[in-house]
Amino acid sequence: MTLVQGGVCAAKGFKASGIHCGIRANRTKKDISLIFSEKNASCAAVYTTNLVKGAPLTVTKENISDGYAQAVICNSGNANTCNSDGIEIAKKMCSLVSEALGIDSHDVVVASTGVIGQKLNIEPIKAGIPLLVSALSKDGNEAAAEGIMTTDTFKKEIALKFTVGGKECTIGGMAKGSGMIHPDMATMLVFITTDVAISPEMLQKALSTDIANTFNMVSVDGDTSTNDMVTVLANGMAGNSPITDDGEDFQAFMKALNTITVSLCRMIAGDGEGATKLLECTVSGASDKNTAKTVAKSIICSSLLKAAMFGADANWGRVLCAIGYSKADVDVNKIDVAFKSSKGTVEVCKNGSGIDFSEEKAKQILLEKEIDILVDLNSGKEEATAWGCDLTYDYVKINGDYRT
Amino acid sequence: MTLVQGGVCAAKGFKASGIHCGIRANRTKKDISLIFSEKNASCAAVYTTNLVKGAPLTVTKENISDGYAQAVICNSGNANTCNSDGIEIAKKMCSLVSEALGIDSHDVVVASTGVIGQKLNIEPIKAGIPLLVSALSKDGNEAAAEGIMTTDTFKKEIALKFTVGGKECTIGGMAKGSGMIHPDMATMLVFITTDVAISPEMLQKALSTDIANTFNMVSVDGDTSTNDMVTVLANGMAGNSPITDDGEDFQAFMKALNTITVSLCRMIAGDGEGATKLLECTVSGASDKNTAKTVAKSIICSSLLKAAMFGADANWGRVLCAIGYSKADVDVNKIDVAFKSSKGTVEVCKNGSGIDFSEEKAKQILLEKEIDILVDLNSGKEEATAWGCDLTYDYVKINGDYRT
Repeated sequence: MTLVQGGVCAAKGFKASGIHCGIRANRTKKDISLIFSEKNASCAAVYTTNLVKGAPLTVTKENISDGYAQAVICNSGNANTCNSDGIEIAKKMCSLVSEALGIDSHDVVVASTGVIGQKLNIEPIKAGIPLLVSALSKDGNEAAAEGIMTTDTFKKEIALKFTVGGKECTIGGMAKGSGMIHPDMATMLVFITTDVAISPEMLQKALSTDIANTFNMVSVDGDTSTNDMVTVLANGMAGNSPITDDGEDFQAFMKALNTITVSLCRMIAGDGEGATKLLECTVSGASDKNTAKTVAKSIICSSLLKAAMFGADANWGRVLCAIGYSKADVDVNKIDVAFKSSKGTVEVCKNGSGIDFSEEKAKQILLEKEIDILVDLNSGKEEATAWGCDLTYDYVKINGDYRT
Repeated sequence: MTLVQGGVCAAKGFKASGIHCGIRANRTKKDISLIFSEKNASCAAVYTTNLVKGAPLTVTKENISDGYAQAVICNSGNANTCNSDGIEIAKKMCSLVSEALGIDSHDVVVASTGVIGQKLNIEPIKAGIPLLVSALSKDGNEAAAEGIMTTDTFKKEIALKFTVGGKECTIGGMAKGSGMIHPDMATMLVFITTDVAISPEMLQKALSTDIANTFNMVSVDGDTSTNDMVTVLANGMAGNSPITDDGEDFQAFMKALNTITVSLCRMIAGDGEGATKLLECTVSGASDKNTAKTVAKSIICSSLLKAAMFGADANWGRVLCAIGYSKADVDVNKIDVAFKSSKGTVEVCKNGSGIDFSEEKAKQILLEKEIDILVDLNSGKEEATAWGCDLTYDYVKINGDYRT
């Protein structure tokens, strides 16, 4: 596998664009994006488990129920959720895209992100879609990645080349974070495009399998959003023999997909609202995978630990505390804890009790931008990783007055 | 019922004291407290469900397994948790109290609160206990309430008089908050004293029943502490006919106990680390009690909503979002939401969708120190209340470097 430029436009046959159409007051901020595939593509998606679902998710689910899609339209600045006319507006967005591109309106994936419960005005979108279509280009990936940002501080995109059955294939993706992030079966907004030939069924299987260890292991603030969605479009233009079962080709695709999703997870966690640090917690020595995942996620979600990491304070008691209330069945007297970064590793707890360590060395390690929290349960061979970020003054600032 | 002064000393036969013995470096901060009952008392307790349990809880549980206790010793500044010699130190605290008071060491409740995983030095405690005993007085309640404070900004105590079977009885309590608060079957440290005559079994029943709707409905930061404990001592000196079954007298006691626990819950939530506001969320119209409780607690735990409340921002979409991911089975299209304070009430959501409201009025309401979040599920007759606080810069500050 080789990393390449181009994000969602890297794969053959995909173009994208992103513009400011007027949903946001700030004219320097893009607020709508379009992705288009030359050929109708296999499409898979996973959605938030929040009972309060954004109207665009309901419309997307219906549109791609046949397993295919050809375009993605996504606005930022307004989530189109908890609005009495939400479904109508989301459908209107699809029909406008369908008219402008000359495709079936049921081949459109629609998504919205931003504030909940304020009506989404269709007028700026109506005016914007023709502009988006004429702006579609092979270099449009960056503009598209910008158009879906809310409180994100940087664009999140990645692409890579890999081989399936001797054919060179490409996969790319873009994502938006960065608050209300604690996915459960799905996550934030992520759009992945690939030119692999794969059946809708196998594409869905790949995505559903992958997110259990990737997007569902990310948490910024414990709040599962109403508009979380991940979609993958696979248009088959790489020319590989279509993947229709769980063989070597499928595994090659899974591996490429996983590289994309893990990269996007790390970007999303590291750019959590107000975050100054990416936290990666790896729990090893678990008796089963589920225990490892439960423990890792509980640690990454602890407000107390997140605040300690912001302060570069090696307060490992909070790691133990978070393990203890995780509901996982662990022997607390066997737990080892260490903190690691590019500055080195410091062991702080052995067999559930504190050990002597250099506070100075710990401080040096924890002042870095990427911190690994290493937990060994010493009870088996399974492991899991979860991603999160520190809790900072800026998280409070950003969320203390998000709407104004 | 009438509120009275005196906290844990208000009931007949109880004395208390609190001093600085040297566990904390800051000599102006008290760090150890003692409560003593003239007569051996019925004793009930509930403990944290965290698998990582403070050594003092293990020792207390063993000591009061016969249903009786006569003294409470509690230090702040160190939790005596995750230390290899924790049990030994906690037992030593009991034997020192037993010697100084001339009581059985198994009649001592021991508790510790503060940082986890640093060894607790017995020497200052050894020197302090004789001083604590000689300082015991009927006016010692305030000093005792101070001695158990960690990041609390004010002493938490309350007492009241009530009648059981024609006899005037008294009940009082003290508590410490204020971070790592998200109780599950038990909570923070709370010590309640009463002169009611009641069997240990009925006292335990009263406490276990009560906490399900009081302490277990409080959350400051979603972190369930390792050292949570609530104990009640009832020494029978009021002279009422002992309560041994679930009759009128038991109900009178339950009511008095509930008044004490709800008051302490409100104090703990309102003094949550860094908090500027007390949030009280009442969910009504639920099909069953459990649904009401689940929804109320999910709302009170949302970091996003807590930050919005700090910013006095009527971002009700975050209330809907928190209901949606609570796992409660609700019809989101029936939900009404309003915010209320001493400045009035503003309705913001009807049938799951936003309604027009005055942002100015909402701001005025939300700038107050006590905010009610009113949610009507419109699906039944059950209701529940949960207590929490806003998420502020100071929460991050306090927890960014708690140990130093």
